[in-house]
Formats: sequence, structure tokens, C-alpha cells
Amino acid sequence: MTKKYVYRFEEGNAGMKNLLGGKGANLAEMTNIGLPVPPGFIITTEACKDYYDQGRRFPDGLVDEIRTHIQNLAKKLGKAFGDPDNPLLVSVRSGAPVSMPGMMDTVLNLGLNDKTVEALARSTNDARFALDCYRRFISMFGDVVMQVEHHHFESILAAQKERRGVTHDHQLTAEDWREVIARYKALIQAETGRSFPEEPMEQLTMAIQAVFDSWYNDRAIVYRKINRIPDDLGTAVNIQAMVFGNMGHDSGSGVAFTRNPSTGERRIYGEYLTNAQGEDVVAGIRTPKPIEELARELPAIYKQFQDICELLDRHYRNMQDIEFTIERGRLFILQTRNGKRTAQAAIKIAVDMVNEGLISREEAMLRVEPEQLDHLLHRRIDPDAALEVIATGLPASPGAAAGIAVFDADTAEKLGQEGKKVILVRNETTPDDIHGIAAAQGILTSRGGMTSHAAVVARGMGKPCVCGCEAVRIDPLQKMFTVNGVTVRQGDLIAVDGSTGRVILGEPPMLDPELSDEFRQLLEWADEIRTLEVRANADNPEDAAKARAFGAKGIGLCRTEHMFMGPDRLPRMQEMILAETADARREALEKLLPLQEGDFYEILKTMEGLPVTIRLLDPPLHEFLPNAEELAVEVAHLKFTAPESPTLHEKEELLRKVRALSEFNPMLGHRGCRLGITHPEVYEMQARAIFNAAARLVSEGYTVFPEVEIPLIIDAGEFSLLKNLIDRVAAEVQAATGINFEYTVGTMIELPRAALLADEIAREAEFFSFGTNDLTQTTLGFSRDDAEGKFMHRYLEHKILANNPFAVLDRKGVGKLITMCIQAGRAVRPGLLVGICGEHGGEPNSIEFCHQAGMDYVSCSPYRVPIARLAAAQARVINDGLVQKDYGTK
Amino acid sequence: MTKKYVYRFEEGNAGMKNLLGGKGANLAEMTNIGLPVPPGFIITTEACKDYYDQGRRFPDGLVDEIRTHIQNLAKKLGKAFGDPDNPLLVSVRSGAPVSMPGMMDTVLNLGLNDKTVEALARSTNDARFALDCYRRFISMFGDVVMQVEHHHFESILAAQKERRGVTHDHQLTAEDWREVIARYKALIQAETGRSFPEEPMEQLTMAIQAVFDSWYNDRAIVYRKINRIPDDLGTAVNIQAMVFGNMGHDSGSGVAFTRNPSTGERRIYGEYLTNAQGEDVVAGIRTPKPIEELARELPAIYKQFQDICELLDRHYRNMQDIEFTIERGRLFILQTRNGKRTAQAAIKIAVDMVNEGLISREEAMLRVEPEQLDHLLHRRIDPDAALEVIATGLPASPGAAAGIAVFDADTAEKLGQEGKKVILVRNETTPDDIHGIAAAQGILTSRGGMTSHAAVVARGMGKPCVCGCEAVRIDPLQKMFTVNGVTVRQGDLIAVDGSTGRVILGEPPMLDPELSDEFRQLLEWADEIRTLEVRANADNPEDAAKARAFGAKGIGLCRTEHMFMGPDRLPRMQEMILAETADARREALEKLLPLQEGDFYEILKTMEGLPVTIRLLDPPLHEFLPNAEELAVEVAHLKFTAPESPTLHEKEELLRKVRALSEFNPMLGHRGCRLGITHPEVYEMQARAIFNAAARLVSEGYTVFPEVEIPLIIDAGEFSLLKNLIDRVAAEVQAATGINFEYTVGTMIELPRAALLADEIAREAEFFSFGTNDLTQTTLGFSRDDAEGKFMHRYLEHKILANNPFAVLDRKGVGKLITMCIQAGRAVRPGLLVGICGEHGGEPNSIEFCHQAGMDYVSCSPYRVPIARLAAAQARVINDGLVQKDYGTK
Repeated sequence: MTKKYVYRFEEGNAGMKNLLGGKGANLAEMTNIGLPVPPGFIITTEACKDYYDQGRRFPDGLVDEIRTHIQNLAKKLGKAFGDPDNPLLVSVRSGAPVSMPGMMDTVLNLGLNDKTVEALARSTNDARFALDCYRRFISMFGDVVMQVEHHHFESILAAQKERRGVTHDHQLTAEDWREVIARYKALIQAETGRSFPEEPMEQLTMAIQAVFDSWYNDRAIVYRKINRIPDDLGTAVNIQAMVFGNMGHDSGSGVAFTRNPSTGERRIYGEYLTNAQGEDVVAGIRTPKPIEELARELPAIYKQFQDICELLDRHYRNMQDIEFTIERGRLFILQTRNGKRTAQAAIKIAVDMVNEGLISREEAMLRVEPEQLDHLLHRRIDPDAALEVIATGLPASPGAAAGIAVFDADTAEKLGQEGKKVILVRNETTPDDIHGIAAAQGILTSRGGMTSHAAVVARGMGKPCVCGCEAVRIDPLQKMFTVNGVTVRQGDLIAVDGSTGRVILGEPPMLDPELSDEFRQLLEWADEIRTLEVRANADNPEDAAKARAFGAKGIGLCRTEHMFMGPDRLPRMQEMILAETADARREALEKLLPLQEGDFYEILKTMEGLPVTIRLLDPPLHEFLPNAEELAVEVAHLKFTAPESPTLHEKEELLRKVRALSEFNPMLGHRGCRLGITHPEVYEMQARAIFNAAARLVSEGYTVFPEVEIPLIIDAGEFSLLKNLIDRVAAEVQAATGINFEYTVGTMIELPRAALLADEIAREAEFFSFGTNDLTQTTLGFSRDDAEGKFMHRYLEHKILANNPFAVLDRKGVGKLITMCIQAGRAVRPGLLVGICGEHGGEPNSIEFCHQAGMDYVSCSPYRVPIARLAAAQARVINDGLVQKDYGTK
Repeated sequence: MTKKYVYRFEEGNAGMKNLLGGKGANLAEMTNIGLPVPPGFIITTEACKDYYDQGRRFPDGLVDEIRTHIQNLAKKLGKAFGDPDNPLLVSVRSGAPVSMPGMMDTVLNLGLNDKTVEALARSTNDARFALDCYRRFISMFGDVVMQVEHHHFESILAAQKERRGVTHDHQLTAEDWREVIARYKALIQAETGRSFPEEPMEQLTMAIQAVFDSWYNDRAIVYRKINRIPDDLGTAVNIQAMVFGNMGHDSGSGVAFTRNPSTGERRIYGEYLTNAQGEDVVAGIRTPKPIEELARELPAIYKQFQDICELLDRHYRNMQDIEFTIERGRLFILQTRNGKRTAQAAIKIAVDMVNEGLISREEAMLRVEPEQLDHLLHRRIDPDAALEVIATGLPASPGAAAGIAVFDADTAEKLGQEGKKVILVRNETTPDDIHGIAAAQGILTSRGGMTSHAAVVARGMGKPCVCGCEAVRIDPLQKMFTVNGVTVRQGDLIAVDGSTGRVILGEPPMLDPELSDEFRQLLEWADEIRTLEVRANADNPEDAAKARAFGAKGIGLCRTEHMFMGPDRLPRMQEMILAETADARREALEKLLPLQEGDFYEILKTMEGLPVTIRLLDPPLHEFLPNAEELAVEVAHLKFTAPESPTLHEKEELLRKVRALSEFNPMLGHRGCRLGITHPEVYEMQARAIFNAAARLVSEGYTVFPEVEIPLIIDAGEFSLLKNLIDRVAAEVQAATGINFEYTVGTMIELPRAALLADEIAREAEFFSFGTNDLTQTTLGFSRDDAEGKFMHRYLEHKILANNPFAVLDRKGVGKLITMCIQAGRAVRPGLLVGICGEHGGEPNSIEFCHQAGMDYVSCSPYRVPIARLAAAQARVINDGLVQKDYGTK
């Protein structure tokens, strides 16, 4: 039995996305619920996969199967492929299981040739229209299928307009199109050495092959990498009878969302163009009209469309993104899919749909991508600030960002990798710009609407975007733009406000974000659903307060080293480090004690009633001293310029000490609790500062829960030694003050040996907190600073690693170790408190792992607390099977 | 029921070492086989442990039990403690379960006081003798028990001699001793504020307490640390009736070995002094006579002693170290224990005892400490070299060493830590010099015999030692010695030849060691017994040949990076690294290819018929470039001295590149197979060189087994990618040459993630070789270079780690990971070849682990191959229970 590679729309449904692709499955679904969908059929993703498996050759039987379906389709419409009287014309479109907008190729009007174009002219009684269709087909086919670059076709068209002395396409006559067509064909012949294929079946098989091939074109590969889509899904191919939106003023094309994709408002939101094909709307070349105008222009059609939107919104229980065409007063639906939306819209739609009774609270959790929340949680422009607004465009993706203006994607990527903040400024973006958009803080385009490429992609990535800002005149070669007399060159600072459309000169002051009511509602539901607690990493009272406001239930990591970096503290810290005797060291530490005590007092007070994990000093001491190479150069200079100066001597002495402290591999060196072992007086001072602060707060009536954390443990004996020291100091402070306070002593698990010996360590330690950055470094043997700059990209390219393991927790390796560690630890101490405090604690995929591994909490930066709350709820919903898995909800 | 803390000699036996200590258990054993042992009893190690558990207090009932035993002992001898007519005198000696020679304290003549000394004078009819005993007792008691420093007693004695105008102790009269005794007592009163205790029972309990306390004195702690003896064993205390070797010319004391401890020859070997106590023999102050002279002086005693030696040698089935005393023509055996011996002697004795039918071959394996073999495997002085021999002493510990002369232990330790080779030169050594001996290459003393402290300790450590070289006049304050008109100052190069006793000026040429017939025999037996194969690490044909000669069954690690360091290669390597284009890089690599091919050709040829594991390039590329800081200083200099020079520009450019390649944590950076991922052309060149060499050798009729090893793997996908490249190159070479050759591709396991994912990796990899240096670094998060200099000593001091994990494999952490890894790997590939190639592969304790973990082989440096062969056999004997565990065989 051979495989079935082709499905009629009537044979499929929305659940068959993996086989039929998203577009095809939805066309099938709509056909079966009775919507006006032009008839057609789908070539499955299996066919694509087999095509690749066989070295880019069509699998046996596929061409025959396609021929049969084309004949059946033609018969149904009373047409025939290549028929000189009644020719069948079709569109050929890719459709992957996961939406990849604009990433792959489409061919329209397929079936036209020198003969059938005349039939089309006769049947429409419009030779100019038919020839226009034909020349569009030839250029699209030439570009997409025969690899003749698009600009060659553009040049021919431009030359024709120049010859005719006209400026717009619609000013060209049928005769002009005949000449253009002849030139197009000659171009193809010259560029490819092949003639343009007149035979429709040949056109079709070539187009299908081109769609298959497009699965592995460069931009598709990049898109999949950015969006973490597996390469082995393959694409389906949709073949559908053509309908024409460009048959006059009772025709048109448009796209619409069943709800507002920017705000989530429950109202159809869309754009259309009369006398245009769909490509014209999304290309952003003509600025389309708002969908409301259709009510005036074609009221019956508008009413019908409204009803269909309502139906699809309820049928899919999700906001839909719908493409439609009106052919001579008749409405056709060409596509529906779950609409991309801003985080703000996603939240509002999810909460609204719960309130409308369409979905459950658990389902609502899955309707918002946690990562997307990120930009709702970042800054907006201070409304009270005086701004130099130089232009206003469309508010295409909300949030504000500032950066230096950059005029091409490559430069944006390059500067982005150097850590620079950039705003990508383009006339319009294309899929070739994806890497630049990914690297930019924000996007500004001079052309295109809310559904233009730039707008869609920016919303997907959660980046601020201002679109269609036509006042801005961009000169990409000169790397500058001018607007209202202002010139902005590459490197100048600008800001975009994607919520209002404003473009601003300089870097305006920004404000902290606030959470909308719906956002709060969603997070409250998330808190009810999730079982994983969320804490924040905060090193100072301000961050602690922010964390609390964002819903953190404690501090999971309070680093104490930043406290030594202040200008009033660093000199004392250096004094301590450079002390030659234990006495001198103690003296320096005594000066630091009251400062540390003040830090802890404020943080513990801010987190009153909640636990605060305080990590004792962790980084190597040389981090507090000047750089050796710089000092050496300074010394070399001084030897020439001031060989007798006492400064030279001092610097030489300092250099000697810095050298003595310098390390080959500081990450694996004298740091963490190793400092506590060799310099117990430092940990003693810190413990005393914590307990003094706790005692003061208790005496003032506060309830505090300090959790003292010992970093970089490798052995239970090492832990006990330091725990004994801490317990002794606690007892001393309690004895001296007469005040009792609660505290626990636990450890970070950040080295493989600690994870391997978790049972022994858990006998002593009251909590474990995974420091997954270091644990990743040691488990993989990757120094993060070195790996990310030097070889990580290759590991991702070759797919040796699915993700950067510093961004997304490496479940296979590090995760295995963590799972073993928790099991072993809980086996000896069933109530062992377990959390994570690496950056992974704020990353949704990693949070899901933490839920599965049975951790008690994740801890992340304050701004990511809401993301973590939602991700923790999602993890619960998915892992505990609280809703049926619902394809395409995101 | 209270514990029994005290055992009469009649109640014990040699198997009770843990409870009675080694000395006590053997005294009991000898008593019970009827040897002439002065009667006595033993206080158990349990009593010592309970003493410490109770905060240095005697456990309940102990004192009563001692009193009862003293009374019984006295009764047996018809004496009484403190009896003015017939006083009981005893010795009090420590005796730990493991021999710690000279480490703890001894008190003789206990029971003497102002009254009993008179009784002793009467009973011996020798007042001077009695008073001499008394003054010895007071000074020994004052020093050991009452902590009055020994030199104070020495000063009093010296002053008395000066007053009398005499130079030797024996010239002092009874009256002198009375005066000395009065001064000693006054000294004790002045120094301690307590009077010397006259009451014998008080003397006894104080002495016992002093022995208990000596378990934790500084030198005992150091000794245990060096010899890896647990702290919690505790010491027993032996209380034994005194016999006197200093009662005239028919009295004497001596020590002897049942076989020669230097060579192993089967002949009594020992020394004695007439009219002397045992302390006089071992202290090295009087030079003793060879034991053979006793046959002339006291032939009957000598005959009796010979018989006892023979009996003990057979009874213990091991060479014995025996202490004896002759009291007025009557022989007493005071101690027997397994004798310390040189490696050479250990081997000969073990082989001889097998041939004598005393022990099995398996037992023989346990009679030689593998580590001890080390110095047999190092160099000796070229016998044909012209040497400037400046003196000759006793050949106290075989082997030769050269280094700079150093005159105190602290300096020796300091310079040793700086990597300098030193010869420690002392008049005599004491236990306080242990750290200096440990740090030195060899030892030279001007005083003391073959059983002096220096000789015993040096033999134990396997260090060359020349003793009793009296011609050498040492001035420790001036840090120099003179001998035969030659002056040697600290820092001058000298050599000692511990096999001949020669002291040589300068650093003479040395020769490679050869294995004795017995050594070969022992290793052949080891090869029959062991199941763990032994390979060697060798990077060049010379080392490979050496490895083969030492019995290696293959190369377990051939590092390819050293091959790029030669002066003809480094410039090309740098050219490759600095190449700006892939073409330039290929060009440089093409120059390296024939050189690499030549390397592999020679090594594979040398190892014909045996496997050779070749590791592809591993270290980070910046290791082949100059140091950044030095370059920066050079640039800073040039800016002043030659600001216009092209050199400056070049250096600046080089510095830029060095900086670009420099890393924060090179150990975790861009190295190992990561180079193969980013620079596949390098690995391709290396694979081609290997396979070209293999093809040539096969065509010449050789059988070769190259094993291509990919370093630093973290994932099966990474491994496959590189394995595919290697397989492709192999196929290309086979196709080009038409020659088939065998090869395998495997990996080092040196990162925790690889160990954790061993099942997946073993599906692809044909062998695993544990790189335990890196695996230790990452599992513990210890950078070896940093840890050993900065904090390791604290981890050992606090006993957080039992051993330096880079010297002895960390079984608890790293070992756990290895065990998991092997199990997982073998589960998917049952025949998976598994070995170890870190330094641990040559360390006996680690080798035992490798045997237990089921590895196929260990690989170590060529010189350690014999050690590994023996250690592997020991591991088999012990772990597979091939002999009963036999305490004290080592």
C-alpha cells in the first residue's frame, strides 16, 4: 500500500496540523463547517519529509496523485488545467505545522500561459486584468520557482513605465503588459537558460518542488532557530482554486483579527484594499483602509464577514487572524489561524474568554506566552518628561526602547552582539531582516501598516515597533534619515514608543511598568493554580521592594558581594584583602560590619514575614582589586616617566599582591565557601551582621526569616565546619542581645560533587538552592564568558545543544544531576526546602523543569517575577494534565 | 560492666594490634611463644580514645585497673612500686596500631625516686649506675611528661662537665650525678612550678597521660598526615619491667633485622652497643658496632639471638625488626615488628619468601608498597662518569639524587614548594625535620648509622640518603659544610648516592634504572594475578619504547599538542592560529601534516601489535601564543623606546590577537573537541596524519591499532559529528592508498555531563578513557593550578578531603560519577573498552579503585608502569580476597 500524500479539504480537520500544516488543516476545518472557502487540496508534510529523505526527489506516486486531484478539482468547477476556454487557475502555498509567516514561498495564478490568459481575458472581459495576472504570475514564478532575482523583474517594469512616461502600474495598458510579459520571458530564458514553462502541470510540479525547497531556505532556517521550531516537521503544500480580489471595485482583499491584536479589545480589527490581491495588503506598499470602512462600501459583505469572525472566534475558542478575498461581490475566506498578539492583548483576550465562558482559567494560563510578558514589565517613557518628538508613526508593537539608530540588519546584529542597544530603522522590513530585528531594542519603519512584516515580527518578539512613519526619509546608503528638518545619523541616540507611535530624539527618561487589571487577574489565577513558589533575587532594599510588588514570596538570593563595591566600602574591602596580619584583617572587617548590618536590616525589614536567603561572600577576592595587566602597563609607564616616584613603588607592590591573588581559572578558584574556610573571619563578620540585624528587627516587632546560604559547597564536612561557625555566632548574638530569632543554614548546589553527595549534605543543610549558572559551567565544562563568545554558536548551529544552556536549563545533563540531587537530599531530609536561584529561575522552559523536579520555589530577577508566576502555573497545567493539549493555542 | 582497659602480655596476641598497638600485640605474641620478654601489661587504644572522648580525662576505673596490674607485676617479680629495698622499675612506651617510629614518647626507669635509687645502688652495687639511671629518668620525665625543654637539661649536664673539666658523661662520678640530679629537680620546679613527683604511682599516671597526649603532638599529626594514618586510631601504652643494657660490659642493647633491610639479603643485619640502653643505639650519638661482632664478644648470646631471629622471621612470615637488651649476660627481647625496608629489599624478601615456601605469590604482592618502587625506577649515577666525590658515608637509602645543598628543613620545604630540587644536609635529623625530608630529593647526615632517624625515614619515603658521613663538617648557622678542603654553601649543587654512600660535587650524569631479576619476577607474578591491564602515557617514540620496556601493553594516552611545540613546528602552529582565512589556515596545516604523520608513524611502529590511543588536539590555542601581560608590557616599553618602529605595530597586532583568544577560564574554554567543532580542518589534518601513518605501516607489514580519541566531549551529537569526520578521512585514506587498517574512535570522559550521558555516548564511542584530572577539576570545581597553591592545604588540614584529589582519586565524588558512567556505558555497549589516563592511573590507591570499578586498563607515565602492574595485582589480591587480610604486612 502506498502512502496517501494528498487530502481534499473535505477530508481534513483542524486537528491534523502535523500532517496538513496549519493553513491546510484550518482550510479543511472551515470547509467542513460550511464557510465559503475556495475548493482545493493539500499535499502532506509526509510528502515533504519523504522528498528530503530521498535526496530532494518526489516520492513514487505523488505526481499521479496530484494529477488526479487537479482533475477532480477542475471537474468540480467545470474547468480544466490548461483549457483554452475555461482554464483552472490555482494558488500554491506552503503551510507548515507551526506558523512561519512570510518565511516560505507562494505562487498565485498558476495555470496561466499564453493560451489560458486569453481565456481569462474573454471570461472576465478584461484583457488588461488577465495580462496583469499573467505578468504577476510570471514574475512570481520566475522569482520563487526559477530563482531569477526579483529586482530584474522590477527593472523591466520600471523601464516600461519610464517609456510610457507614467508613474503607476495601473496607468499601463494591456499592450504594455504584453510587452512586459515578453521581456519577462526573455529575462527568464537569459538568466536560467530555460524557457518559462507553458504547461500547467509542469508549472504545478515545479511550484510544489519550490515550496518543498523553501523549507530549507536561509530565512526559514534562521526563523526556526530563533523560534525553536524543529527542522524535521516539513511543510505541507496547499493547492487551491484562485479567487481574484483585483477584479474591480466590487472586489478586494483583506486581513482581520477577531479581536484587537494590540490591545485585546473584543472588536474586529483589520484592514483591506479594494481591487487588490492579498499580497498587496500585507506588503505594505499601498496603505490599506480600516475594516470598518467595508461596512460603508459593501455593507452586506461586511455583515457576512462579521458573522464569520464571530463564528470562528467561538469555534476555535481563540482570537483568529483571517484572510479574505471578495471576488465581484462574493466573499471567500482564504485562511484562518490563531492570531499573533501583543502580550497585553494576549492577557486581555485570555481573561475575557474566561469571563465569556469560552475557556477555563487553566486554559487561560496557556494563552499567554510568559516570555512575551517581558516587555510589559519593562520601562515606558516618563509621561511627564519633556520629549523631542520628531515624528509619529503607527503604534505597531507596544513598549518603549532607546538605542542608537542603525540602518541595516547586519550592523544591528553586530552591534547587538557587542552589547550595544540599537534601534533598527528601515523603509520596510523583509524576512531577510529577521536577525537584525532580533538584535534590536526597537524597530522603526517608514512604510507599512499594523500588519506589515515589521509589525508582526516585532509583536511576536515583544519588541517596541513604530511602523509606517512616512515623514521619516531614510537614506540607507548614507546611513541616515531626515524628518522635519532633523537629521539622524547612524550612532545617534533615538527612542521609539511602540504604544503611541512616537519617535523621539535622544534617550528619554523611562518609568517602571505597572500591571493592568487583567494582568493582575491572570496572575492571581496563576497563583491559585501553581504549586511552585516564586521568589526574587535582590541585593538591596529597592529591588526587594520591587520584587514584593511584583508578587515575590521571598528573596531566593541576596548576594552580599555587591554590597562591598560601593565607594565607601571598596577601600575597606581592599584593606581587608591586602592585610598582612590577621589583626589588620579583623580591623578592616570591623569597619565593614556596621555597613553590612545596615544592608541586612533594610532588606530583612522590607521582606518582613517572608524568607530571605542571604549568600555569604562568593566571588574571588581579586575581583575587588585592580586588573593585573593594566597595573603592569602602568608600572612599565612609570618606569619611564617617573622612575623615582613612590607611586611606582606602591604600584609595584600592589601588582605583586594582585599577581599573588590572580588565578588561572577564577571560576574554579579561591572563591565561595573556600574563602570562608581560609578566611573564617570574613564569614564570621557577615553572620554577625545578619544576626545583629535580625535581633534588632525582632526587638522592633518585625518577623524575619533569614536563611544563611553557604556557596560552592563540595562536601558535608566543609558545610558543617562553616555551619558550626554560623551557629556559634548566632548563639553569641542571641546571648549578647537576649533576643531569639529564627534562622536556617543551607547551601547552594552549584558543583557536581555537591549534587552527587546530596544525601550527606542534606543531613546538615536545611535548604538547597541550585546555582544553575555555575552548575552548568562545571557540568558542561563551559566557562560562560568564554563559551558564548567563542564556540557556543557552533554548538547551536550543529544542534549539539538544543538551546544555549545558560539561557534554558540543560535538562539532559544538568537536569539529570538536579533530579538525582533532589531525590537523594529528600531521601534523608523529607522536608528539605529546594529552590533555584540561577537566571534559569526566570525562564519558562526551565521553570517547567523545576516544577517537574519537585522544587519548592524558583527565584528570579524582580522584573521576571510575573513571568515566573505564569510559567509556574503553565507548568502545573501542562504537567498535571489540567487541560487537554490544544494545538495552536499559542 | 566496665570496659577492660588493661591486658597482661599473656592475654594478647599479634592479631590484636588495633586494641593493643603494634608493639604491645607483638610483645604479647612473643611472650606466648616463649621468648624472653620482660613481663608487663598494655593499656589499650580504647583507653586512649575514651581519654580524648572525655576531654583528656582518664576513663572511670582505669587508674584502679592499672594499680592492680602494677601490683601483680611487682608481685611476680618479688618487688613493689616505690619499695625502698626492692623497687619495681618500669618503662612506659607508646604503641600505636600502625608503626610511627620516634613520633611519640617513651619514659624509662620509671619508679625511681630519692629512696628507690638507693635500693638500686645497693642491689647493683653501683651507686654511680643507679644515679645515672635516676638522672636520665628525671630528664626524660621532665622533658616528655612535664614539658621542660630538653636543652635545659643538656646545659646543666654540660656545665657539670665543664666544672669537672671533663668531656664525656662516663667521666662524671656518682657525686657529680647527685649534683646534677639536684639541679634537674630545681630546674623542673623553676620551669613548671611543680616539684618532681617522687611517688611512683603518680609518676606512672603522669607518664601514661603524657603518652596519650603525645598522640596529638605536632610531629605525630604531621607524620600521620604524610603517611595517611587515621587520627582516630589512638595509641596503646606498654608498661614493662625495666631491664638494663647499661650494667657493664656483659650488658648491652641493640637492634637487628632478620634480613638486610637495604638489599633484602637473608642474613641478620643489625647494630649494638655494649653497656648502653636502646636509646643510645638509635639516637646515633655513639656509632654502634655491627651485630656480627656480638658473635665474638658474647658468642652464646649471639647464638641464642640468631635462633630467635630465625624463629621470629618464620613465625611472622616476614622480615622482623627486633630490639634487644642484654642485662648482665641475659638476653631480653624488647620488641619485634615487621621491618621497614627499601623497595629493593622488599622485592627480594618477597620473592625469596615465596621461594622459601613461607608465603604465596599473592601474599608476595602485598609485601611491596608500590609507591616505594618509584625510586628504583628513577635514575642512578652513570658509573662511567668522572665524578668529584668529596666524601663517602653510609649507604642508608639507595638511589641517587642531585640538588642544591640546604641546611634546614624549613628552607628545604620552601624551596621544594618552589619546585627546586634540594639535598637536605644535617648533622642528624629528628622528627622535627620530617617536612624537610619530605621536600628534599635526598638526605646527607654527618652522624648516625643505618638505623638512625634519617636513614629509616628516607628509606620509608624512598629517598636517597647518605648517613654518618663524619668527614663532613656542617655549620648550620653559616649554611655551609666543609669536607676535605672543599666548601659547599647553601645553593651549591651536590649529589648523594644512597646506594654507595658517595657525596658528589655538582650534578653528575644519571642513567636510567634497570630492573633486577627479583623485580622482574615479582612483576611477572603480578601480571599473572592482575586483571587490570597497564598502558603508558607517551607522546614520542622514546617514551613509547621506555613504556614497552617497562611492560606497558599499549599507549593509553598519546597527546598530540607537545608535537606542535618543537622549534620547527611552533611557528607553523602560530601561523595556523593567526590565519585570517580558512585558506591560509589550510596552508599552514598542510605544512604540519607531514610532521605529524612522521610522529605517528614512529610511535605506532614502536608499539607494533599494541593499541595506541591518540588524542586529538586538546589545549586552547592561546597556549601556543605569547603571554598577554608580557606582550602588553613590551608594547608599553616600545612606545617609549621605539614609537615609530614596525615592531611596535607588529607586537600591537599580535597583542590584539592574543587578547582576542585569551579566556577567563581557559580550563573551561575553547579547547578539546570544541576546537574540532570550530576548526574541523585541524582535526581533519590530525586524522589524516594518523591514517596515512597507519597505511604506510600496514603496507610495510606492521600490525597497528590506532585508537583515535576525541577529548572533552559533552554530548553524543558532538561526538558523532567528529566521528563522522574521522571516518570520512579514514575512508579517503583507505581509498587513496588501497590499504585497509584497523582503527577505533572513542572519547575521553573528563566532564560530568559526559559521565552523566554515558549511555548515549557509548552508542557512538568505541572506548572511554577517563581524564580524571579534568573530571576532578569540574566535579569539585577546583582549578588544580589555583587550588593547590591557595586553599587545598586547608581542605586537607580540616580533613574535608582525605587526600589531595589530584593525587589520589576522590572516590566519593569523582569515583561515584565514574562508576555510574561505566555502568551506563556498558549497559548499551557491553564490550566497551574503559581505561583511565589521568595521573591517577599511576597511583596505587586510585588503581585499586579502577580495578573495583571494572576498568580494562590504567595508563600512566612509563616510569610508573611497574608500580601500576604491582598495584593492579594488589588490588586483585585484596578485592578478590585471594589472601587473608594480614595486618602489618606492609
